[in-house]
Amino acid sequence: MTERVEHGSPIDKTIDQNTDLADVFNLAQQLRVDAIRCSTAAGSGHPTSGMSAADVMAVLMARHLTYDWDLPDNPGNDHLIFSKGHASPLLYAMYAAAGAISEDVLVTTYRRAGSALEGHPTPQLPWVDAATGSLGQGIGIGVGVALAARMREAEHTPYRVWVLCGDSEMAEGSVWEALDAARRHELANYTVIVDVNRLGQRGPTELEWDLDAYARRVEAFGAQAIPIDGHDLAQIDAALHSSATTTRPTVILAKTRKGRGFSEIENSPDWHGKPLPAEMAERAIAELGGVRRLRVVGPLPDSEKGKPISHQGADVTLPSFEEGGEVAPRKAFGATLAALADRPDLVVLDAEVGNSTYTNEFAKVCPDRFFESYIAEQQMIATAVGLSAVGYKPIAATFAAFLTRAHDFIRMGAISRTNLAVAGTHCGVEIGEDGPSQMALEDLAMMRSVHGSTVLYPADATAAAALTATVADLPGISYLRLTRGAYPVLYPHGEEFPVGGSKVLRHSEEDDVTVFAAGVTVHEALKAQEELQGLGVRARVVDLYSVKPLDHQTVAQAARTKAVVIVEDHHPEGGLGEAVMATLADHRNQAPLVHLAVRHMPDSRSAAEQLDAAGISARHIVRAAQRLLSDLRPADAQA
Amino acid sequence: MTERVEHGSPIDKTIDQNTDLADVFNLAQQLRVDAIRCSTAAGSGHPTSGMSAADVMAVLMARHLTYDWDLPDNPGNDHLIFSKGHASPLLYAMYAAAGAISEDVLVTTYRRAGSALEGHPTPQLPWVDAATGSLGQGIGIGVGVALAARMREAEHTPYRVWVLCGDSEMAEGSVWEALDAARRHELANYTVIVDVNRLGQRGPTELEWDLDAYARRVEAFGAQAIPIDGHDLAQIDAALHSSATTTRPTVILAKTRKGRGFSEIENSPDWHGKPLPAEMAERAIAELGGVRRLRVVGPLPDSEKGKPISHQGADVTLPSFEEGGEVAPRKAFGATLAALADRPDLVVLDAEVGNSTYTNEFAKVCPDRFFESYIAEQQMIATAVGLSAVGYKPIAATFAAFLTRAHDFIRMGAISRTNLAVAGTHCGVEIGEDGPSQMALEDLAMMRSVHGSTVLYPADATAAAALTATVADLPGISYLRLTRGAYPVLYPHGEEFPVGGSKVLRHSEEDDVTVFAAGVTVHEALKAQEELQGLGVRARVVDLYSVKPLDHQTVAQAARTKAVVIVEDHHPEGGLGEAVMATLADHRNQAPLVHLAVRHMPDSRSAAEQLDAAGISARHIVRAAQRLLSDLRPADAQA
Repeated sequence: MTERVEHGSPIDKTIDQNTDLADVFNLAQQLRVDAIRCSTAAGSGHPTSGMSAADVMAVLMARHLTYDWDLPDNPGNDHLIFSKGHASPLLYAMYAAAGAISEDVLVTTYRRAGSALEGHPTPQLPWVDAATGSLGQGIGIGVGVALAARMREAEHTPYRVWVLCGDSEMAEGSVWEALDAARRHELANYTVIVDVNRLGQRGPTELEWDLDAYARRVEAFGAQAIPIDGHDLAQIDAALHSSATTTRPTVILAKTRKGRGFSEIENSPDWHGKPLPAEMAERAIAELGGVRRLRVVGPLPDSEKGKPISHQGADVTLPSFEEGGEVAPRKAFGATLAALADRPDLVVLDAEVGNSTYTNEFAKVCPDRFFESYIAEQQMIATAVGLSAVGYKPIAATFAAFLTRAHDFIRMGAISRTNLAVAGTHCGVEIGEDGPSQMALEDLAMMRSVHGSTVLYPADATAAAALTATVADLPGISYLRLTRGAYPVLYPHGEEFPVGGSKVLRHSEEDDVTVFAAGVTVHEALKAQEELQGLGVRARVVDLYSVKPLDHQTVAQAARTKAVVIVEDHHPEGGLGEAVMATLADHRNQAPLVHLAVRHMPDSRSAAEQLDAAGISARHIVRAAQRLLSDLRPADAQA
Repeated sequence: MTERVEHGSPIDKTIDQNTDLADVFNLAQQLRVDAIRCSTAAGSGHPTSGMSAADVMAVLMARHLTYDWDLPDNPGNDHLIFSKGHASPLLYAMYAAAGAISEDVLVTTYRRAGSALEGHPTPQLPWVDAATGSLGQGIGIGVGVALAARMREAEHTPYRVWVLCGDSEMAEGSVWEALDAARRHELANYTVIVDVNRLGQRGPTELEWDLDAYARRVEAFGAQAIPIDGHDLAQIDAALHSSATTTRPTVILAKTRKGRGFSEIENSPDWHGKPLPAEMAERAIAELGGVRRLRVVGPLPDSEKGKPISHQGADVTLPSFEEGGEVAPRKAFGATLAALADRPDLVVLDAEVGNSTYTNEFAKVCPDRFFESYIAEQQMIATAVGLSAVGYKPIAATFAAFLTRAHDFIRMGAISRTNLAVAGTHCGVEIGEDGPSQMALEDLAMMRSVHGSTVLYPADATAAAALTATVADLPGISYLRLTRGAYPVLYPHGEEFPVGGSKVLRHSEEDDVTVFAAGVTVHEALKAQEELQGLGVRARVVDLYSVKPLDHQTVAQAARTKAVVIVEDHHPEGGLGEAVMATLADHRNQAPLVHLAVRHMPDSRSAAEQLDAAGISARHIVRAAQRLLSDLRPADAQA
């Protein structure tokens, strides 16, 4: 599929930049016909949502989209993002018209098992930058892709980014975050086309065909708005041309009709997301002029091919922290980012809390690759996904609680096969007085459940520094959970923290109880161990800094003590505790256990008081261990 | 704290609606002084973010906020929402000025253990509608509160909703979803005041003091924009008055200076979120005219007190489904909503997929309490939280995958003590051809980790109907996970599904293996049980429809078979499997187990193919059971 495949059938005619618009109209009709054919064959899909945009896409690909279909990774290529991912039949019909996929593959494999022609586009296809299908995201990802072109102007001619949006998705707040970011970055190479076909899934859209209302909003957010008749090819051509000659981002508002070209269903609210039954499809294809085999050869990028972005920086010396000194993990994170700044692919994104997450340390030494997203977490991640799509390695940071705002973007990032590190500071009740709105108590559940994610939670500054360097190199989506407060440095400079590892901080051959902890609770566990020692109880303390993947072997081994205590600064569900308990259940663990986690609704009080009120402080660990061991004694006596 | 407490000190003077603005300025100064006093005493907090808005709030509470401080639940009361929740020192200073809390409580308990005066406001205080502190949310919740007034116009005079926003939070897309919704609902009783103090946490905001830029956006989204000097009391008074006399929502853009009134720090970027040290506080208080003891008596609502919203409808007959017939759980959900429509407190919200979630069945019979949110999931939840704050019971539904978009709003809803049912359809790989962007595979982790949540996942139409009726009555946040496809009806009409329960669907006295399933995998487990029976293996099948709280006792008992298989249509983390394994570990389960879950990245294929590719179909359950039991045999032989 990812190879260029020749059509099996002879090409009727080639469409290029000089082809009359009358013939480009034939291309538009072909795209409609093929969108119908593939979805009817599949028995599902959204042909009508593509038919409305076929005219715009035909003119775009014939005359404006600068793209070498043989070399999808040519850095000079434009980028085309279907923010309305459900219009995939249209997108794939375009790929077929370009000769990138065969007509046969289009018609026989769309939405079938094993095909890369999925219901919504994903980067399984080499011409797709990022997965779409959750509306209001492609428009934001396009900002990141366009921004990358600006960053590399010196190396190659900046490409353009073309985004096709549906009108329904303009209701998503993320759309306005995207346009605001496009304006702020002065992305003249960024064109959004809104396919205003007036009909959403369940009926009329909010603004229907009120192009003026859309235009007012678009202009207010700083983009050039160009309202057009989306079925008038000359107007389309002029608008696309004009978008490439302005200094502002452009939003073309194309008034269109859903199901355009097939009179039985054109502009009908009843045909969203439905393939045409075979008979209807036949009538539609006939009305649209039958099956065509036009081949598009649009504008090609300059032949010089830019270098890929280098991932190599100078040798990095991680910041070092004196053992026993008190340093906040978030501070070590910032210092490490600054140490890594020499790496040319590294970009850091902030959501207006850089002085708290310490990403401002990176900004100080590398302002060119630091992006302030203001308080717009969704767009922060969207920009990161876009930058990742063209080879950058983004690290996006904010308060961990506010990453929930971008959950859908992170989830979709996994489908996009994005290489993205996310850092969340101010996790857990440990933040103290600011109260529950600022506490991340669900972030481990959220980030663990992301497909293929890595979740790391350093207990001290040394680990935070090492793991920051680690996530900068990790593929996929990784998450670094960073404690707010300053805690003793536990590990010597140079200590290694492999992904999937753990650290047994205290142990003897005859431990009574194992305490599994991570992050701030490691410090509580160490205090508890000392106290227990005074009480004649030998406690093992394990720092599970790698929450996902978990160090299953060490967990299974370490738990072969008489009792197990798991302690975490997170709600009981989906976090460290359940990860450990799943492993223990899997290993048929027979030790009694207690899971200490945040089970109440916190309020405002000091960090130490919070840990204690939540039942996850040293005192509670001691008590839990004692209770477990004393419960055991009668049984032991009986044995 | 929730009782009205008299000041210990004599009142200097009473401020009422007829007080000269010159004296109202004294109130503003008092609010500044008290914001400084409480945060300095606490050692944390955001005094400067309140000082900028003190003039606006002084005029508001003296002349415009119609509020009976003795009766916070008087339905005629206006509502004041601090969307900039970090300005809590100002809000609490207002409560003190109104006599709702004592000066002593303000100064000695703010941000302390056990005090309801938390760092960010929560409904622990009776004058707070909803928790804020995650920016860009209060403005959306205000829409729901204002909408409720419109719904009850016949019963009592509509109150006004006043929302105080920060300027930094205007970067959140959710803000524009909120204003769009306010326009759509024609909320003339809704006034937002943006405290444009130009400075965010880490420096200048994106638009600084460009009131024109804000005004263009606000007007484009359909609200009346009124730019003013936020320190000119006459301008403030005129703007507040004008907002109450228009037919549109209003946004007052108040140009202010952070830290206003204390020359050492006024308009300085270095004083965000910092209390003044004691010495500085002394100088500030002196410059602000010292400690005052003014008491505000603002406008009071009409004395007639409306009735609370009734939660009683007529007796409901749940829709019934023939056993063995195939019905989609989401369809049973819609039919049940329609059956419940008579209940006057029930409101249903949609995010433009009502024809897929079947909430359109409710819309057909009860259009007045059905709200179309278009594709704006954050605002859907914000409106629901607002409606819940004044006594309605909202049920908000969309595709489960897109609930991730509203994760932060749901998380904050728990802090707001919101009574809200959320329904997510199209969960898991079961949705088939549409592919991973439309599949909820993280929703159980997300919803389980919400504090105090209930998570229900019916396997058939009978259960879906019963559990829909259940969530309509449940306090707190509940989640109903609804399968897309039609599956056999398993339970007879009238079957009861208590929260925390489960159903043992197949069992004998000598079961070899227990299969724990929920939702669609129950049907696969039943098929597997039949197949295993043919192979001489006795399988128990348990339908864990109550994912949270889990039926711990049944899980612990049922698992006393030789082996355990858990099967779920969700990623392995944070879902049914970990909930069960945590219980098993807790009960020192010794049976070997396999956890079948979605561990790969799905693509597009039919529902049956998806379940099989994910390894969660009947065939895989059979294989897992066989493998577990055959692994056991050698050990058994040795024993």
